[in-house]
Amino acid sequence: MAKMVKKNYLLAPGPTPVPTDLLLEGARETIHHRTPQFKKIMEEAIEGTKYVFQTTNDLFLLASSGTGAMEMAVVNLVSPGEKVIVVVGGKFGERWQQLCETYGAEVVPIKLEYGDYATPEMIDEKLKEHPDAVAVFTTLSETSTGTVMDIEGFAKVVKAHGKLIVVDAISGLIAQPLKTDEWKLDVVVAGSQKGFMLPPGLGFITFSEDAWKKAEKNSVPSFYFNAFAYKKNPAPYTPAVNLIYQLKKAVEMLKEEGIENVWERHRILADAIREGVKALGLEFFSKRPGNVLTAVKVPESVDGQKLVSLMRDEFGVTIAGGQGSMKGKIFRIAHLGYMSKFDTIVAISALEMALRKLGYKLEYGTGLKAVEEVFEREDV
Amino acid sequence: MAKMVKKNYLLAPGPTPVPTDLLLEGARETIHHRTPQFKKIMEEAIEGTKYVFQTTNDLFLLASSGTGAMEMAVVNLVSPGEKVIVVVGGKFGERWQQLCETYGAEVVPIKLEYGDYATPEMIDEKLKEHPDAVAVFTTLSETSTGTVMDIEGFAKVVKAHGKLIVVDAISGLIAQPLKTDEWKLDVVVAGSQKGFMLPPGLGFITFSEDAWKKAEKNSVPSFYFNAFAYKKNPAPYTPAVNLIYQLKKAVEMLKEEGIENVWERHRILADAIREGVKALGLEFFSKRPGNVLTAVKVPESVDGQKLVSLMRDEFGVTIAGGQGSMKGKIFRIAHLGYMSKFDTIVAISALEMALRKLGYKLEYGTGLKAVEEVFEREDV
Repeated sequence: MAKMVKKNYLLAPGPTPVPTDLLLEGARETIHHRTPQFKKIMEEAIEGTKYVFQTTNDLFLLASSGTGAMEMAVVNLVSPGEKVIVVVGGKFGERWQQLCETYGAEVVPIKLEYGDYATPEMIDEKLKEHPDAVAVFTTLSETSTGTVMDIEGFAKVVKAHGKLIVVDAISGLIAQPLKTDEWKLDVVVAGSQKGFMLPPGLGFITFSEDAWKKAEKNSVPSFYFNAFAYKKNPAPYTPAVNLIYQLKKAVEMLKEEGIENVWERHRILADAIREGVKALGLEFFSKRPGNVLTAVKVPESVDGQKLVSLMRDEFGVTIAGGQGSMKGKIFRIAHLGYMSKFDTIVAISALEMALRKLGYKLEYGTGLKAVEEVFEREDV
Repeated sequence: MAKMVKKNYLLAPGPTPVPTDLLLEGARETIHHRTPQFKKIMEEAIEGTKYVFQTTNDLFLLASSGTGAMEMAVVNLVSPGEKVIVVVGGKFGERWQQLCETYGAEVVPIKLEYGDYATPEMIDEKLKEHPDAVAVFTTLSETSTGTVMDIEGFAKVVKAHGKLIVVDAISGLIAQPLKTDEWKLDVVVAGSQKGFMLPPGLGFITFSEDAWKKAEKNSVPSFYFNAFAYKKNPAPYTPAVNLIYQLKKAVEMLKEEGIENVWERHRILADAIREGVKALGLEFFSKRPGNVLTAVKVPESVDGQKLVSLMRDEFGVTIAGGQGSMKGKIFRIAHLGYMSKFDTIVAISALEMALRKLGYKLEYGTGLKAVEEVFEREDV
């Protein structure tokens, strides 16, 4: 076997590939965070991020992972003993539930089978059953199953009931349309290592006026994630200076492309991956897959964990396996962030070669042909 | 006036200058955090960081600022209603107090005048008065005043009483000797943007066996900062991948230099700055200054805030002003992190020129001469 240079392709739902220009932006000289020079950079980064969230609400940058931003939502909005409705359709819905329970909320879950989705009607019904619920917590893209929820539909129902809607958009934002203000979303959280094309380490959170009103009456103690500290001073503790340089440039890139075009690009890439997967005779795991990632059932003849490690360790192509009870049963290919046509070609080619190596019968090129046909049809 | 290139010199107590090699290390390709490849990098980074802390205790890396690590100490160690003793000698002692009070502890402060320090005898006395206290919270280097505490002395007393000692070593670690295991420190917290020579965004925390025992009985709810989540899996939430690349390299650099040599380098640089400041006829603010930074009283004839902005905006030399009630009354020059002889020369030269511009009478070179004499005496 000839020795071959191995290049890395990151096709997991976060961290996602970081463009070289953004990596280098993070290598710029660290400056002091309490200078007018840095304040200006931070303000511009926040303004650009608001565009990405489609909001004029308050938006804060946290030195934390996305989970930190989720915790900030919970500790500021829910007091012990209060009832909340949580859509639980996978690992990240479960994380909302754990967080809410950790801080003493009474959780009414809308428990879905993994891969399934909730409907606005289900939310409406639950809110009617529980008129004392104060908020609905949900997930734009449930990363563990590849399922996208109808947040716009949920929000209509939730706001008609006069309740708060809190959205984990960590993996969904940027890949999937989300309009914070138009849809009247009270709190939206995200993280840097997904659609933003950045390394991990920054969390994002928005607060609507209704969210602030609720937060004012909140009784859970908090400090690092206390929203009022950030309202008073957007950098109450040392911010992640270099990641904020990178964020400023990333949101400039997204604005230049135009957020609607970014969403459309992700839709086309998702279509391409899914046509490729289907052509190989594989089945989707999610009943409502979105633009972020595609979760695929591992064929019975194939070892799912081996598939992921073979692609990663031999081909340099990192996809994600299943988490928790889905381990070995599904694999997940992301089409998220700094992605273009040929990334999907690489993904499906690596999949074809890995599946064949593991004994799955397929004709080379079958999936790739389907991918190319999507691009021709979409004229991209 | 001829136009002059302006280079930047970061002489504030964090963020500190990041060596180019470390900046570029952060620009390496982001890889997935759940791969064996990244796990190895993270393990090595943690091992190296333990060397810097001089510990074999559990040590965790957090995607947070240092304040996040402080919060982690409080929420895991103190239950509501429990009594804690807090050394409060400046803004960061106050932060311990605020954090402990936020989470329901009864705080017995050892309240010091700004710039003053506590003695082991004062800790002993307080512990005798309050035998029901469970822990002592203190600060290695109180950044707001430039005061270094006798942590070794404190620890002897605290451990003799069988209590926990929790140390904020955020700005002090690496500049100032600290031996976690030898001194029996239960919890030590730090942050990346100080002696580690890294951009901000990583917090560090260590837990001794006694700390774990206490944490097991703790009743404050926590999630993002729950220590047991990290004990089970050092990366329970997406870690700050690129900062961890940088950390791995930074601790290699520190190990190569040798931690005792690093401490000694900081001591010499601190001496040099202080001799320079004294030679200019200025007074120190702190009664027990250390190796981290030197806080200096602004002479009466000079506008302290102007001094800081002139040095920063015209000379490119960033020092820190006073915080809170000390605003305009003191300035602070750090000698922390990636610093060598000529950084102190630049600091004192900029200070001479800025003071003269603002009307303070001095002869050029007076401070610089004193600095050079220190280096000659120390033979470096």
